[in-house]
Amino acid sequence: MDRRSFLRKAGAAAGATAAATTLAAPAIAQKSNDMVIVSTWPRDFPGLGVSAQRLAARIGELTEGRINVQYFAAGERVGAFDSFDAVASGNAQAYNAADYYWKGKHPGWAYFTAVPFGLTYTECDAWIKYAGGQALWDELADGFGLKCFNCGNTGVQMGGWFNKEIETADDLKGLKMRIPGLGGDVMAKLGASPVSLPGGQIYENLVSGAIDATEWVGPYNDYFMKFYEAAKFYYYPGMHEPGSMLSFGMNKSWFSKLSKTDQAIIEGACNEENSRQMAETNANNGAFLTKLIKEHGVKLKEFNDEIYDSFGEAAAAVFEETRQHSKLAAKVHDGFAKAREDIGRWTGLSDAAFVRQRNRVLGL
Amino acid sequence: MDRRSFLRKAGAAAGATAAATTLAAPAIAQKSNDMVIVSTWPRDFPGLGVSAQRLAARIGELTEGRINVQYFAAGERVGAFDSFDAVASGNAQAYNAADYYWKGKHPGWAYFTAVPFGLTYTECDAWIKYAGGQALWDELADGFGLKCFNCGNTGVQMGGWFNKEIETADDLKGLKMRIPGLGGDVMAKLGASPVSLPGGQIYENLVSGAIDATEWVGPYNDYFMKFYEAAKFYYYPGMHEPGSMLSFGMNKSWFSKLSKTDQAIIEGACNEENSRQMAETNANNGAFLTKLIKEHGVKLKEFNDEIYDSFGEAAAAVFEETRQHSKLAAKVHDGFAKAREDIGRWTGLSDAAFVRQRNRVLGL
Repeated sequence: MDRRSFLRKAGAAAGATAAATTLAAPAIAQKSNDMVIVSTWPRDFPGLGVSAQRLAARIGELTEGRINVQYFAAGERVGAFDSFDAVASGNAQAYNAADYYWKGKHPGWAYFTAVPFGLTYTECDAWIKYAGGQALWDELADGFGLKCFNCGNTGVQMGGWFNKEIETADDLKGLKMRIPGLGGDVMAKLGASPVSLPGGQIYENLVSGAIDATEWVGPYNDYFMKFYEAAKFYYYPGMHEPGSMLSFGMNKSWFSKLSKTDQAIIEGACNEENSRQMAETNANNGAFLTKLIKEHGVKLKEFNDEIYDSFGEAAAAVFEETRQHSKLAAKVHDGFAKAREDIGRWTGLSDAAFVRQRNRVLGL
Repeated sequence: MDRRSFLRKAGAAAGATAAATTLAAPAIAQKSNDMVIVSTWPRDFPGLGVSAQRLAARIGELTEGRINVQYFAAGERVGAFDSFDAVASGNAQAYNAADYYWKGKHPGWAYFTAVPFGLTYTECDAWIKYAGGQALWDELADGFGLKCFNCGNTGVQMGGWFNKEIETADDLKGLKMRIPGLGGDVMAKLGASPVSLPGGQIYENLVSGAIDATEWVGPYNDYFMKFYEAAKFYYYPGMHEPGSMLSFGMNKSWFSKLSKTDQAIIEGACNEENSRQMAETNANNGAFLTKLIKEHGVKLKEFNDEIYDSFGEAAAAVFEETRQHSKLAAKVHDGFAKAREDIGRWTGLSDAAFVRQRNRVLGL
């Protein structure tokens, strides 16, 4: 998912509007019921931006305006990557973001968006709400004066677009691929060269051959990028982000002073938007996957077992480096890994096994 | 899932307390903000009952008591199966139920809980919220003066407990199996004898050999039923209920008179509880699956392709009978089938494919 590229563009936009932002800020009265939300998503950005705006509106609606919500897209008040500090310092009350953006502050944050070989959407929910995940998130966030709820999910990402078939790990050696985050670290361990590119430049780089491959999100978002004109092979499943949680991170001190009702409404609205965003994404991915196949002759390819074994070894090495960072990093990883073991086995026997049989029988 | 057995027990309890109910009812003031919820679940019933009570409490909490919620478990005010009529007639304002209980009134209701070869939890959400499902549900419910939101899900059910291995459809012939609903109809077409039994009698019937097999729910609920003492083989995945939606059905006339805010809060609370119940179920199924395997030596078996092909043929016949009922039944089925095609293919390439590879690599 190329959040980073949008962030980079948003950052540039933020620079251009910095003066306006500085002037505008004092006009916002900081009453106890004012909630300034700063977001890492551009305004009206399909999926992520729309979801963040819907959540902001819902909090105002459900509290009948007791909470006076003011929503700022990336760059409208602070740059996308400044959201964390704005909220931690109390200059804003909440951010809407992917918490793996903050892994430079602590690697534990990555686990509260997505990690390679991690959790799917339903597994994320089970871990966060009923298997110890929220407590670990609270412990991590508390150290920064924050309180976070999960407020969206974009599900399993596709593995990416390639202009040649990927049969063995050797085929990844020297491959220039646009893939960010820990997923990029995994690719680097296998000899690929992960690169970062703004969203608007991926297509031209793929056409010119400057890069050999790219991942983005899934069929809905990828459709509009027209990668199918430049790369024939669309691989699944992606190992790098199997269920990307979005986060509504609040200034903890501010949140703790709200009434119990308003705290509950915010939590409830986050829980609602969490499933809405996933539903919207899955509904669109389904329809656009059909369009990609039927209208554009995209060649769907499944990563084979040998490649996945290589991904697995590389991911294990990346995880071990993460655990070495600190006691808290190891604690978060181990909590995640325990949930993955218990809940992950169940998903394998339930959703995954059922869908495999149903789709086989129905020819889907 | 043996909801029916609990309903039967709840029904008996309702008989015993009928006089008390009749006396108590007039004491409930029917003000415009009174919301009497009648439920098909016994009080404090793990999973389903707890979820229904949590949702009822949440509506009161989020509206700060503007909506005065009074919750009645099965038999406390009306019998479980009388919930529908109580709400349709306006004697109660809402029910918490599985809408397939009402398929005798119209077969379309089955689609808004679960049908064989149907939708998983995430697919249900995508269909209902973003692929036309809610509009079909509204059209069906409107004919009865109701408005329904999905408010929970128990996910993919296990295929059941058997005392012999099931290798071909022939092994199902003459098999006495406790399995309700359309899933039972599928089994009957394959020569099995589906039977209904109250939850408290399944264990003794399985031990005595009066029945050969039973399904129930999943590892968490099944664990406490101790079926592992009487049947060795625990089959997955169940074809009969791949994602059982629960329904919060309201008297439409009453709901339409609420303020926009209170309507939104009810919808939001239903959406929130929808994912909470699924998260709770998945978290517990994971842990209890591990316990069943490690502590009780349960033999997990996967239904083979041949059996699933037979299930598929029988399910197609059951569906065709359902479509023949009426124009609306055919419309609901066709809307469901279109969503299953688009969204189902995507689930196969995303969640199912990823989980298969992740679990294989990690040895889960």
